[in-house]
Amino acid sequence: MTLWGGRFKEGTAAKLSQFKDSIGFDQRMYAEDIAGSIVYARALVRAKVLQAEEAETIIRGLEAVRKEFAARQFEFRETDEDIHTAVERRLIEIVGAVGGKLHAGRSRNEQVATDLRLWLLHRLPKLDEALKRLQVALIQRASEHTETAMPGYTHLQPAQPISVAHWLLSYCWMLMRDRDRLRDARRRMALCPLGSGAIAGTPFPLDRQAMARELGFTAPTQNSLDAVSDRDFVAETAFALALIGTHLSRFAEDIVIFSNPGFGFICLPDRYSTGSSLMPQKRNADVFELTRGKAGRLLGNLVALMSMMKALPSGYNADLQEDKEAIFDSMDALAAMIPLLADVVVALEIDEKALRAALDEELLATDLSEYLVRKGVPFRTAHEWVGKLVAMAEETGTSLSALPLDRMQAVSQRFEKDVYRVFDMDHSLASRDILGGTAPQSVRGQIETARDCLERLDEIGGMG
Amino acid sequence: MTLWGGRFKEGTAAKLSQFKDSIGFDQRMYAEDIAGSIVYARALVRAKVLQAEEAETIIRGLEAVRKEFAARQFEFRETDEDIHTAVERRLIEIVGAVGGKLHAGRSRNEQVATDLRLWLLHRLPKLDEALKRLQVALIQRASEHTETAMPGYTHLQPAQPISVAHWLLSYCWMLMRDRDRLRDARRRMALCPLGSGAIAGTPFPLDRQAMARELGFTAPTQNSLDAVSDRDFVAETAFALALIGTHLSRFAEDIVIFSNPGFGFICLPDRYSTGSSLMPQKRNADVFELTRGKAGRLLGNLVALMSMMKALPSGYNADLQEDKEAIFDSMDALAAMIPLLADVVVALEIDEKALRAALDEELLATDLSEYLVRKGVPFRTAHEWVGKLVAMAEETGTSLSALPLDRMQAVSQRFEKDVYRVFDMDHSLASRDILGGTAPQSVRGQIETARDCLERLDEIGGMG
Amino acid sequence: MTLWGGRFKEGTAAKLSQFKDSIGFDQRMYAEDIAGSIVYARALVRAKVLQAEEAETIIRGLEAVRKEFAARQFEFRETDEDIHTAVERRLIEIVGAVGGKLHAGRSRNEQVATDLRLWLLHRLPKLDEALKRLQVALIQRASEHTETAMPGYTHLQPAQPISVAHWLLSYCWMLMRDRDRLRDARRRMALCPLGSGAIAGTPFPLDRQAMARELGFTAPTQNSLDAVSDRDFVAETAFALALIGTHLSRFAEDIVIFSNPGFGFICLPDRYSTGSSLMPQKRNADVFELTRGKAGRLLGNLVALMSMMKALPSGYNADLQEDKEAIFDSMDALAAMIPLLADVVVALEIDEKALRAALDEELLATDLSEYLVRKGVPFRTAHEWVGKLVAMAEETGTSLSALPLDRMQAVSQRFEKDVYRVFDMDHSLASRDILGGTAPQSVRGQIETARDCLERLDEIGGMG
Amino acid sequence: MTLWGGRFKEGTAAKLSQFKDSIGFDQRMYAEDIAGSIVYARALVRAKVLQAEEAETIIRGLEAVRKEFAARQFEFRETDEDIHTAVERRLIEIVGAVGGKLHAGRSRNEQVATDLRLWLLHRLPKLDEALKRLQVALIQRASEHTETAMPGYTHLQPAQPISVAHWLLSYCWMLMRDRDRLRDARRRMALCPLGSGAIAGTPFPLDRQAMARELGFTAPTQNSLDAVSDRDFVAETAFALALIGTHLSRFAEDIVIFSNPGFGFICLPDRYSTGSSLMPQKRNADVFELTRGKAGRLLGNLVALMSMMKALPSGYNADLQEDKEAIFDSMDALAAMIPLLADVVVALEIDEKALRAALDEELLATDLSEYLVRKGVPFRTAHEWVGKLVAMAEETGTSLSALPLDRMQAVSQRFEKDVYRVFDMDHSLASRDILGGTAPQSVRGQIETARDCLERLDEIGGMG
Repeated sequence: MTLWGGRFKEGTAAKLSQFKDSIGFDQRMYAEDIAGSIVYARALVRAKVLQAEEAETIIRGLEAVRKEFAARQFEFRETDEDIHTAVERRLIEIVGAVGGKLHAGRSRNEQVATDLRLWLLHRLPKLDEALKRLQVALIQRASEHTETAMPGYTHLQPAQPISVAHWLLSYCWMLMRDRDRLRDARRRMALCPLGSGAIAGTPFPLDRQAMARELGFTAPTQNSLDAVSDRDFVAETAFALALIGTHLSRFAEDIVIFSNPGFGFICLPDRYSTGSSLMPQKRNADVFELTRGKAGRLLGNLVALMSMMKALPSGYNADLQEDKEAIFDSMDALAAMIPLLADVVVALEIDEKALRAALDEELLATDLSEYLVRKGVPFRTAHEWVGKLVAMAEETGTSLSALPLDRMQAVSQRFEKDVYRVFDMDHSLASRDILGGTAPQSVRGQIETARDCLERLDEIGGMG
Repeated sequence: MTLWGGRFKEGTAAKLSQFKDSIGFDQRMYAEDIAGSIVYARALVRAKVLQAEEAETIIRGLEAVRKEFAARQFEFRETDEDIHTAVERRLIEIVGAVGGKLHAGRSRNEQVATDLRLWLLHRLPKLDEALKRLQVALIQRASEHTETAMPGYTHLQPAQPISVAHWLLSYCWMLMRDRDRLRDARRRMALCPLGSGAIAGTPFPLDRQAMARELGFTAPTQNSLDAVSDRDFVAETAFALALIGTHLSRFAEDIVIFSNPGFGFICLPDRYSTGSSLMPQKRNADVFELTRGKAGRLLGNLVALMSMMKALPSGYNADLQEDKEAIFDSMDALAAMIPLLADVVVALEIDEKALRAALDEELLATDLSEYLVRKGVPFRTAHEWVGKLVAMAEETGTSLSALPLDRMQAVSQRFEKDVYRVFDMDHSLASRDILGGTAPQSVRGQIETARDCLERLDEIGGMG
Repeated sequence: MTLWGGRFKEGTAAKLSQFKDSIGFDQRMYAEDIAGSIVYARALVRAKVLQAEEAETIIRGLEAVRKEFAARQFEFRETDEDIHTAVERRLIEIVGAVGGKLHAGRSRNEQVATDLRLWLLHRLPKLDEALKRLQVALIQRASEHTETAMPGYTHLQPAQPISVAHWLLSYCWMLMRDRDRLRDARRRMALCPLGSGAIAGTPFPLDRQAMARELGFTAPTQNSLDAVSDRDFVAETAFALALIGTHLSRFAEDIVIFSNPGFGFICLPDRYSTGSSLMPQKRNADVFELTRGKAGRLLGNLVALMSMMKALPSGYNADLQEDKEAIFDSMDALAAMIPLLADVVVALEIDEKALRAALDEELLATDLSEYLVRKGVPFRTAHEWVGKLVAMAEETGTSLSALPLDRMQAVSQRFEKDVYRVFDMDHSLASRDILGGTAPQSVRGQIETARDCLERLDEIGGMG
Repeated sequence: MTLWGGRFKEGTAAKLSQFKDSIGFDQRMYAEDIAGSIVYARALVRAKVLQAEEAETIIRGLEAVRKEFAARQFEFRETDEDIHTAVERRLIEIVGAVGGKLHAGRSRNEQVATDLRLWLLHRLPKLDEALKRLQVALIQRASEHTETAMPGYTHLQPAQPISVAHWLLSYCWMLMRDRDRLRDARRRMALCPLGSGAIAGTPFPLDRQAMARELGFTAPTQNSLDAVSDRDFVAETAFALALIGTHLSRFAEDIVIFSNPGFGFICLPDRYSTGSSLMPQKRNADVFELTRGKAGRLLGNLVALMSMMKALPSGYNADLQEDKEAIFDSMDALAAMIPLLADVVVALEIDEKALRAALDEELLATDLSEYLVRKGVPFRTAHEWVGKLVAMAEETGTSLSALPLDRMQAVSQRFEKDVYRVFDMDHSLASRDILGGTAPQSVRGQIETARDCLERLDEIGGMG
């Protein structure tokens, strides 16, 4: 049974069915589809299209179908084009012809839009929770390392000392924005299309506010033509997921580099490492490489969606069916990735000895110019003079602090004995005690702020 | 003068300068760059790094530089790598060595991040205003056509009658979401990086709250390492712009199709049409085709940005310099497109005769099955029966209403004399008087709601 | 059994296995993996690393594994990370410890690169064959319609009469380029990585030429480091597939538009149409809408791949594992789409009456200006004059041929009595008898050329 | 003067002109446009549409226009929509009304397609030449370092020793494929659309073979409808350029990592380095970071193009106008990048001391298992045993070669005294003397092969 045979004189070609049937992937939304139908049945009663007893029979039937799906006992038929067809077909098998009354005034166009919104509204809080766990792990590890200095890089060249905590927290803030963005996406998608019909609305006086409320939406959509072909919520979610993937790819890149022995800052325990089929010594960070690689995949899914949506004519078009596999794939990729990363962050071994060893005095060149600024030297001049000291040290193969005072004073008399106090990593760290800076005190404040933000996110948007 | 010559023994290769200098495109942000420097100078005074008089001199100098730019009289030098260098170089020429004090504790990393945020914060309200004008135009035209029926399509096949107003308003709601999305993007980007230094913060006690406030940001950023390499605000804006482009590409597709003589629903006045160099009769809707095509370009810019950001190691990396041309291009594309579309919407000629001619009775097949549902026939059965009437009418080459009652009753006795009342487009339209439906009354309500939403958007987020 | 446990002190975390194991999708390549191993075993014999009898045992074992896969009786174990591990594990179960000799000097890096190249080399000819069938269908339908005129469009506005054959053949030529492109991609990918080891080559004197030859490659790769991380062949294939998808999306767009009743040029038989769950009259061209939508998906896969490859450091990286699902998905999408489209093209009903009805005289405006050119009027002037006639006809609501001669001569005396001969669609068509033009004679020549090209493609590159 | 005013009653709105005019970017193709017009004029003579003297006048006029462009003295008018209009307008100013005869039977649709093909056909050889120069630089540097060992990485973890030459050559082979791909793209684009008219061909008996030949194409296109809207050649070129960008981004990533002091393998001379405005010690590799970042931009341009082309209806559509800026941008990006990279490769300083220092004995673990394989131990067992040695060495904090024989024999008696001979990097390198392997002898062969390939590329395709 398809839902539309009446005017057709021949059945659907087998190749076409294989090409177009979506039941293979849209059955994931069975619970949402059935929930929508139950709410719709109740609305039909209030609209006097269904008798109360008919609705009860239908709802009992739908509950039975739901149980079959939940128990993985639902038996598919060849004609089950999609989840909506499959559910209605089985419903009628169970409750008889009265089941055929459910679809009055309703279209699969609005059903699938409702199902996918609901599916995302139900899954995104889980993803959000996983992101929070990852943030908590980052904050936890940061709190252990507010005073642990490491080289901070720009252009992957040693720039200034920062704390390990500061580095870890930088990712926590990216994820904070991501979760904020997910809340906005979720707020915008929480509108219920039911009652939109195919494109024009329905002639039955359905209470759309009630249907929206009963399904957990905040309100009904405002234009039936828009409602059936709007996939903004899919694109916006796909974008937010792709950006999460981009952030995690940056973290992954850092870890991959920092766990190379030239750095040796980070070590993964064996249970999070993988080996080589050929090279017995290898211990690889596949988890981070795959995390990095999947950023491409998440971007690909976004492009698939936006390119599919581009230039579609008004109203529902079958192209829109391509929305689900892309967004399911992005959701699945992150659902596997994020909890794993949270575990790995907890387990990461940070090698403080290697970090210290990498703290070359060149990292203090900026401090040295600030020393001069404090003595009234214009910064641009100070920068120039310190640059000369750096060149001098490099030529003679010594460290900056090994330059004797007279060599320094050959560049400028403003270098005085107290200059040697600059060469202290902890002091450098401590000096950047501005809001958002890397000083231990600032970072402890930053951790407090981050925890406050986590709480605020818990409150906003009801993602739980 | 570059800002960093001290340790270097040879000048920059010419080919490298050509490849990497950003002054060609980042000079657009001169006003934002100078505004940031003025605020920074004041903060240095409060931090006791600058004397008040020094700051005054510097600020006067910066104002002078700003005037040169505004008057297009600024003279660039070969060493002006970027807007920051150009401004500092010229400042020092004007005020002397004291100008070299401005950069104390500051990095171009934070400057460029601040400049680009400010630039977007300043430009997005203009874009938002243009979008509003387009919405107002759509609503205006809709209010003229709440009772004008047209064929509504799904799969580009005639589906059900809808009103022209309903069709126009569907785009208004897309833009409503777009403007809401821009507000979220703008809120998230309104954080000030100044005081982040290169990556670690600064040792000078700058009042970051004050700097943020004075520049019109809502707060300072929370992590200096994140702050200098965060381009989420660029990606998020690029996404929001690409989605706007996608919506407009759909509108464009509709107009292109509807202005083909096979439809003839829409006609562009000559001043918005273009001709052919070869074919004298042609009157093309280039404006809509380019609108459609530029959706690809906007998506391309998003991909360029996200792919660039992917897997960047921690801290500032020069790859980030690729952010500006992409986002400038997207902003420019829409800044030209949207005001033009608003004008065109106002000027569109809607051919009611062509619309009526296209209203085939098949559009009422759903109404026919609803007629049966009202008589208690299960919808699925009603659908089947009406399908048979459609086939019957098609075979005999007649319209549905031309089928004699006995032919209908051969399908089902439930068809009765009153069935012929169904064949009335206006009645069909009027029957869909549910919230969000296409009935004139519903659509008038929809227009009210849309106007309310416009007002609410005006209030939220201070995009004006 | 993983292939690399020796140095590890704890097993792999379950979440990591779930995240990184590729067996779920790379088992598709079992036949290629086993073929590679058989060839490798033989090479190890010639290199005196294996005894001939050992190799025979191993090969027998591999054949047994292949049979298990082919019969879908292969039983997976939890430790089967990927197809290579699964095959080696099962091999050792079947033949004992000697199976452990097979991997000498070999790495999964080169195996997977070899497998994927082989898999594509084996599948692309099938895709090519399907494309050919689609071309043959287009040519067949074209040959029926060399004299059937239809409006040709530019900007979707009526431009000039063309023949249906000419329109259909335009897609045939796109596919010709596509197939040519696939041949180039296939030629470039037909190099064998076996013998590359992990990155450095192998110390055993394997005959790489022989291995390449035995597997059907044209030659071995030239640099082992490049060979293990080169995925150009995947990206190039993904691009070629995305461009095929783009071409088919254009064909789909045409059909979707042409089967709207405003055109009515094309009708799909019922078995290739789909209906609506709500609207009994609907007959939709889902097949073409999905074809159009999948162009986005194919582009998304390309972006996923290229973005994944971007900025990968030298040598194999686990990110590369993301190559397979993307390219498999693109191959699968087209493998389902193209044969179906070939069937549909054969079955398409072309409504000549509707075509004729759409042939408005405005389509002959260019012919009219050519009429003047033949009389020596500069084309630019002729264009201007004819433009005036068009405006005149439009104002008076008549056709061009209904303009009386004196009205025409009011524009220019160069219009003479013979001007009325211009108004003949067949004559217009026939006049464009230049190579590549739409005249029936030219199109018949075009068909001949297309058939020649099909034959030449059959000869080149051995895609069969 | 536009080329199409006749039927229009009002001029073009200023905003529309700004939005749609392409003269700002398509004037780059003036030489190609004029060359096409000259050839077209000659063809009109042979077709007896133009008198020989008329053609001479026109051609003289066109030459004059070309000179004005070349001398940058061409004065644009507001009505110059595009390069075709500008040239024809100026031509008529110079030669009078006879200039209006040039466009007989011709359309801008075919002109722009011809111009862009020609422009790329002319520029690609320059790009190819630059790529060759980069390859020659890589080969040159490789030839200096066939015996210089460095750690080869997989997963960015030390894997096996390779030579610096082998690493450099891996990029040479990527570029070899790129240049081969450009040749294919160029071959496929070398077809001439002239004579296609707007979509239907032309009624004048133009010699299309001759026009193609005179412009340097290999043949005319075969279907006029396809010819005017085919942008495959743009997409294919954009893909080839994006893949070049991807390859160079990988090289860039290597250099960025290798020039971090944790590696210190590579040092850029000052003239190819850049500094920091804040940190006096910095010396950054902006050139490589920008190279890496621009891979995203090149991918973005490809997406812009393919997404624009997707689902375009048959025939020319104005969306296609979006092709030029994207492909120009990609060409410009690489035209600046590649010659610079060639210079930088020549100038790169390779620090052999740092390389040696990084050659940890773990890199020889594979050699150790091969030592066992040579003694008849199954590889899988050997891998296991060596893994145990690695764990043992790691635990005791010693190198592998410092493990006493009895400790080794506790793992297996198959380790014998001769095992210590394995610990020799040069020996390891030399042992991989298979085709494509890293042994100095193999690499010297590889260099020969690469040079042969360069010569062959010079011969094929006439890219010079």
